[in-house]
Amino acid sequence: MSEPTIISIDAMGGDHGPAVVVPGVARALERMQGRTVRILLHGDQARIQAELDRTPLAAAVSEIRHTDQVIAMDEKPAQALRRGKGSSLWNAIEAVKKGEAHAAVSAGNTGALMAVSKLQLRMAAPGLDRPAIVASWPTLKGVTAVLDVGANVASDAAQLVEFAIMGEAFHKAVHGSKRPTVGLLNVGSEDVKGHEEVREAHRLLRENGFDFEYYGFVEGDDIGKGTVDVVVTDGFTGNIALKTAEGTARFISSLLKEALSSDLQAKLGALIAMPALKRMRSRIDSNEYNGGPLLGLNGIVVKSHGGADARGFGNAIRVATDLAESDYAAEIARNLKRLDAVIHDGRTEAEA
Amino acid sequence: MSEPTIISIDAMGGDHGPAVVVPGVARALERMQGRTVRILLHGDQARIQAELDRTPLAAAVSEIRHTDQVIAMDEKPAQALRRGKGSSLWNAIEAVKKGEAHAAVSAGNTGALMAVSKLQLRMAAPGLDRPAIVASWPTLKGVTAVLDVGANVASDAAQLVEFAIMGEAFHKAVHGSKRPTVGLLNVGSEDVKGHEEVREAHRLLRENGFDFEYYGFVEGDDIGKGTVDVVVTDGFTGNIALKTAEGTARFISSLLKEALSSDLQAKLGALIAMPALKRMRSRIDSNEYNGGPLLGLNGIVVKSHGGADARGFGNAIRVATDLAESDYAAEIARNLKRLDAVIHDGRTEAEA
Repeated sequence: MSEPTIISIDAMGGDHGPAVVVPGVARALERMQGRTVRILLHGDQARIQAELDRTPLAAAVSEIRHTDQVIAMDEKPAQALRRGKGSSLWNAIEAVKKGEAHAAVSAGNTGALMAVSKLQLRMAAPGLDRPAIVASWPTLKGVTAVLDVGANVASDAAQLVEFAIMGEAFHKAVHGSKRPTVGLLNVGSEDVKGHEEVREAHRLLRENGFDFEYYGFVEGDDIGKGTVDVVVTDGFTGNIALKTAEGTARFISSLLKEALSSDLQAKLGALIAMPALKRMRSRIDSNEYNGGPLLGLNGIVVKSHGGADARGFGNAIRVATDLAESDYAAEIARNLKRLDAVIHDGRTEAEA
Repeated sequence: MSEPTIISIDAMGGDHGPAVVVPGVARALERMQGRTVRILLHGDQARIQAELDRTPLAAAVSEIRHTDQVIAMDEKPAQALRRGKGSSLWNAIEAVKKGEAHAAVSAGNTGALMAVSKLQLRMAAPGLDRPAIVASWPTLKGVTAVLDVGANVASDAAQLVEFAIMGEAFHKAVHGSKRPTVGLLNVGSEDVKGHEEVREAHRLLRENGFDFEYYGFVEGDDIGKGTVDVVVTDGFTGNIALKTAEGTARFISSLLKEALSSDLQAKLGALIAMPALKRMRSRIDSNEYNGGPLLGLNGIVVKSHGGADARGFGNAIRVATDLAESDYAAEIARNLKRLDAVIHDGRTEAEA
């Protein structure tokens, strides 16, 4: 039997805590048959055990690490750092730091998770002051990784290149592409378009041979088309693009629901087409795409959406396992070194 | 009979020229019954006349202004300025400059239209170096105006406030709200979120009594919800948000089409629900929301999408007429003066 991959989980995070996390472990195991995984569940012993009693599949691979402290979903990052030590979220990350686990998963408060992860694991990407977040975005061709969607407000050219490096490694490890294509989000496809940071990142990506294929500029509608595997943008634009797309999807779903219940004839048609409509809905269900790593850390931490269901949380565990079992970290390190050499040369010239 | 509103049209612009423009005039007249409109059609006499012969409703109010020059859809703005004089697009704008028409409409090349409009009409908004573009965005509550979507790449705080002023006047004139609410697009709703320009614009909008209700920060998903009537952002983010939403809508439509033709049962259901699905489609048809003014000019110029159909072009004519017949320009001038006073005071202090 191969060495198990060990995933450390904040069992108290998210809107539902152990009631979603434990069934989520079972869902992940069902989807990862043939792989050897062990789970550390950090949180309230009694509540977690009650869920494990109902879920023998999860119980067979899990170990509870008790703590009665939690970080609330609305706690500020600074508070979380001050008072969060020993909480389920803190301990989940600490297990990665100590080498007891290969990756951590939490559906807890994003700001707190970022702050605690950064404090414990430290940043590996020299240009970032806080982790970036990647979204797995369903497209006509499959899944495109879009980053940063984590609201890092400004990104210079070197940071955008770091996002490209990390997004590429993520897509390869989790979505299985052999040689991902990377595009830079802009307002047009010509070299002269966009602001200075974007044009400089374009130049760096085009001229320096990283381990992936740089496609060039892409526009907003290229995301849904699946033009490239990885779309790179700053955290301000990325966060707004992601939420705008979510709002658009919700708007169209509402219209569709309204149309299909507008009169008797429409209701009848909807009833007959229901199996097909349900299959379609599962393709845009956010639980299907749940689980984005915090990028740029020395260690793997995956954020699950706070409202995810068991299937969604299971996906986040699968993402963490895929990353832990892949060449992900080494690939990022290799490309970051290449970027560093380029920038270092650039700086020397500029400062000379 | 009241004085007619005169609309000057580039009849050769867009993917189809007079074949869409002339029927578009008829569609606009049908939707604006009871209003007195006259139309100047700039372009090829013979081609326009042939269309008018087929469209008596349009012929009754139109006058042809012949030119055999056109600006191509792929011509660069600088070329258009050098060689575009006397073209249908140029002459359509010139009629506004000379006071022969109250507003111009073109489905021509956006860059050329911006450059020619700016050269002939000059900017009225002191902070902008080129016109902004507003998009009418369908939402759960009606229509939200989003600007700038015109790819002005960077926007400082004063420019964002100018967008708010212009978007508000547009929403009032075209979408009929009495006192529009205005939101500033950001990555979170707290005062500390976002980059400096956004936070400074937030302060200016909150503290200075403009003629509209400032709601505060909104996020990407608030656009589709219709949280506010006007969403303000820089041209880079706005362009990407708009295209991302278009891409998302197209992605979901493709999935829906695929689902409803995936097997016989789904096809039957779709057939029965078809009337309801068609009504729904018209609510997200971009032709229904076509026609966005170039904002910040001394004069009204409305851009129609190059691929719009007759109904879409008719909507652009209606937008131009609504703006021409409203208090739009005066309202913008009044609020710009207020902004100028605020900024001028600010500058004086800062420079003292």
